[in-house]
Amino acid sequence: MNIKAFEKLTYGVYIVSAGNTVTKNAFVATTAFQVTASPNQIAVACNKNNFTLSLVSENKAFAVSVLKQHYTPATMGTFGFRSGKDFDKFAHCEFVMGTQTNTPIVTTDALAWFECKLIQQVDVGTHILLIGEVLDSSVLDDVHEPLTYAYYHQVKGGTAPKNAPHAQEEK
Amino acid sequence: MNIKAFEKLTYGVYIVSAGNTVTKNAFVATTAFQVTASPNQIAVACNKNNFTLSLVSENKAFAVSVLKQHYTPATMGTFGFRSGKDFDKFAHCEFVMGTQTNTPIVTTDALAWFECKLIQQVDVGTHILLIGEVLDSSVLDDVHEPLTYAYYHQVKGGTAPKNAPHAQEEK
Repeated sequence: MNIKAFEKLTYGVYIVSAGNTVTKNAFVATTAFQVTASPNQIAVACNKNNFTLSLVSENKAFAVSVLKQHYTPATMGTFGFRSGKDFDKFAHCEFVMGTQTNTPIVTTDALAWFECKLIQQVDVGTHILLIGEVLDSSVLDDVHEPLTYAYYHQVKGGTAPKNAPHAQEEK
Repeated sequence: MNIKAFEKLTYGVYIVSAGNTVTKNAFVATTAFQVTASPNQIAVACNKNNFTLSLVSENKAFAVSVLKQHYTPATMGTFGFRSGKDFDKFAHCEFVMGTQTNTPIVTTDALAWFECKLIQQVDVGTHILLIGEVLDSSVLDDVHEPLTYAYYHQVKGGTAPKNAPHAQEEK
């Protein structure tokens, strides 16, 4: 087994959000991807310790915002490396409320977003795979490039948040 | 709903293979991603019409090869746009047999590979999500870049095979 093989997998960088008008939270995810086109469904891997997960279960919905390559560092700090249990992340970003599910959707540094109704939760051990049907989507910026994990890691020197599915433990 | 939002999601390009010493098949996948690190598990979305899917179910194993950016066009033609039902794709590539599961693993144009034991199959409608535990992995080329779907699409002018989860129907 060569653990370096995992570094060859390609990921984007996203903000996954959930909640309602009262309680909101979001986290940085690298594993968001379309799993079917008819209907349009997106899957997201979410660590069981993520506060956002309880909001997804409660509200039966989540949203995915696609970060742009030239994001502001504060956005990554707020959503990637703090817990929403004791910090209101939505006081530090711009957002809209989705019209289909009343889910908060982060628009700061976002190129596009998807508003999803929760269809399935799949237990894969340390993480849950959230499967959602896309009820609405929008493109906010069709000019700039999406942020990839490779760019974030190689160019920006960023590291994976500890709850990321591909965060390898220190050997 | 703006369908162009889906183009902002980031994917790699992979060859997913299954079989045994007698029967082998493989297809080009864009949705392969790590879902947990302890143990190392990879998920792959596979269209229900894919011949490879029956081989995964039968052999309870699959492999994922990471394609390099400068792949040879024949590799994409063989694995992305032909059916293994009437064509022996493995007569047209180099491969090794995984030592853990006896799964054929494509090494042509590959930077790295993963040999996986099937853990779960999740029905998401038109596709099945294959969840596999990585029993072995290897890096074949640590110099070149992995192929991304964005590069394949924008630079090479490639299109999604019809069974890809993000192949949108013509409007």
